[in-house]
Amino acid sequence: MSLPMQVPAEGMPERVTIYEVGPRDGLQNESAIVPVDVKAEFVRRLVAAGLPIVEATSFVHPGWVPQLADAAELMADLGEEGRRLPVLVPNERGLDRALELGLEHIAIFGSATETFASNNLNRTFDEQFAMFEPTVARAREAGMDVRAYVSMCFGDPWEGTVPVEQVVSAGTRLLDLGASQLSLGDTIGVATAGHVKALVAAFGEAGVGTDRLAMHFHDTYGQALANTFSALQAGITTFDASAGGLGGCPYAKSATGNLATEDLVWMLDGLGIAHGVDLAAVVGTSTWMAGHLGRPSPSAVVRALGGSLAQSAP
Amino acid sequence: MSLPMQVPAEGMPERVTIYEVGPRDGLQNESAIVPVDVKAEFVRRLVAAGLPIVEATSFVHPGWVPQLADAAELMADLGEEGRRLPVLVPNERGLDRALELGLEHIAIFGSATETFASNNLNRTFDEQFAMFEPTVARAREAGMDVRAYVSMCFGDPWEGTVPVEQVVSAGTRLLDLGASQLSLGDTIGVATAGHVKALVAAFGEAGVGTDRLAMHFHDTYGQALANTFSALQAGITTFDASAGGLGGCPYAKSATGNLATEDLVWMLDGLGIAHGVDLAAVVGTSTWMAGHLGRPSPSAVVRALGGSLAQSAP
Repeated sequence: MSLPMQVPAEGMPERVTIYEVGPRDGLQNESAIVPVDVKAEFVRRLVAAGLPIVEATSFVHPGWVPQLADAAELMADLGEEGRRLPVLVPNERGLDRALELGLEHIAIFGSATETFASNNLNRTFDEQFAMFEPTVARAREAGMDVRAYVSMCFGDPWEGTVPVEQVVSAGTRLLDLGASQLSLGDTIGVATAGHVKALVAAFGEAGVGTDRLAMHFHDTYGQALANTFSALQAGITTFDASAGGLGGCPYAKSATGNLATEDLVWMLDGLGIAHGVDLAAVVGTSTWMAGHLGRPSPSAVVRALGGSLAQSAP
Repeated sequence: MSLPMQVPAEGMPERVTIYEVGPRDGLQNESAIVPVDVKAEFVRRLVAAGLPIVEATSFVHPGWVPQLADAAELMADLGEEGRRLPVLVPNERGLDRALELGLEHIAIFGSATETFASNNLNRTFDEQFAMFEPTVARAREAGMDVRAYVSMCFGDPWEGTVPVEQVVSAGTRLLDLGASQLSLGDTIGVATAGHVKALVAAFGEAGVGTDRLAMHFHDTYGQALANTFSALQAGITTFDASAGGLGGCPYAKSATGNLATEDLVWMLDGLGIAHGVDLAAVVGTSTWMAGHLGRPSPSAVVRALGGSLAQSAP
């Protein structure tokens, strides 16, 4: 396979961590319901491809997200291997399920805006932190690691542009509760490269270093990789991505969604930045999953390489 | 319409020039044959949308590129307005047609690699410059401006990675012949952000400043805008783009082609970089053209905004 030429650029990290969200954030936003055995194989393939963190599913109420209603069954299928995989937990009831399974990592999902807190969490901006407090406290007491997603960090479909100070306020309050890492989400894909640097700088001024920040870009307006390059220059070393570009935001105006893991890996390979992921294996996995979903992957790299790599899937 | 928040980044130019290649490079690589009156309206709409340079067509032999076999008819249709639009001219026969029409700008199409020179020009790498010499000399004598495309500047499907020294050699020889600007083409889309900076730096070491360089990125692997951001940091201020992302390279492995004008404009708007283009008008034009081509635009911005802007087309 033809990889890009490795030409390092100035001011880049030597290594980044790719946080794979395809099985949770990706499948959650696909219209198709994928059988649980296919999901389990999807997760196993992604782990086998070298992805260091694979968020497996969400313990959200099945009525809210029918795509992930089989979360308990999936985690049972994954067994011991599943214990180290993060699972999204919306509330204490979800935490109870994570504790019963002996999981080591959970993620919570907060909002940087009042309107999204209201629409998605049924809380005010301030009330969400009170809601998360016992969940995070109990998880930390049990020795769990807690990641906090912050949604709508750049723009909000109802409120427009989101001030960086407001995102920093939400983020620091989630860290103060006990979260170890923030995933700053461009939920509707309106971030551009200068805005990314401004947000990272604002967190820095508030004492939150890049070691506690991850970026979660959506490609709605084609900006995800330009924003990633800008974030790399700002010192970010953890990036969320979704195998094959699965998923999207139901509130966004188009079907384009998460940054594709393959497109991110291709860029990192070109920059000579280590990541530990086998590109051919991920492309093969996404090509296989596209068959189950009955539509081509939106990832440019999967489309460009898919045919030639399909046979090399694990 | 919701534009991205304007947040400037360090080291960016205040203004860039978008060189629109949709009517030539875009339609040349589409399988559909577009009627000449639709092409003329396409060009007029793009000019009306504020695009400062719109390459109209190519005087290549109709047997080679049937999509552009109506070049003479198109230029006649465009009339006086067409004289200031660049037209691709492959050889002296094409130049004769440009001279007859009183055109002010032509473009020639060279290769950075031996194999593409052989396959596309039927010349060796060295012979291509002898072939271009009389064309450029006569055009300059007639007071025409000559742009030189350099294809395969990053990778070549037969030769793999292309050394920057080889690209600089091809580029400087074309400038020495009398070209005023080089358009450095990532014909198969394999450039990544560090490679872009290395190529611009190599030209700088050879005495060719960024004022004589344009970048022509393809989005085959999703890298076009990340590469654009990197090129902006390197001082490049002219970017080729294709309305709606029309076209592609027939030698590339997938259907993804030129950087979409709309996606570029969106990024520039986010960075607060002036360009003079009316985004809504270009989106409306691409949505209209997608109807003629019978398929959706590959541009992320067109897909995200197309529905809401279709009624605002000129």
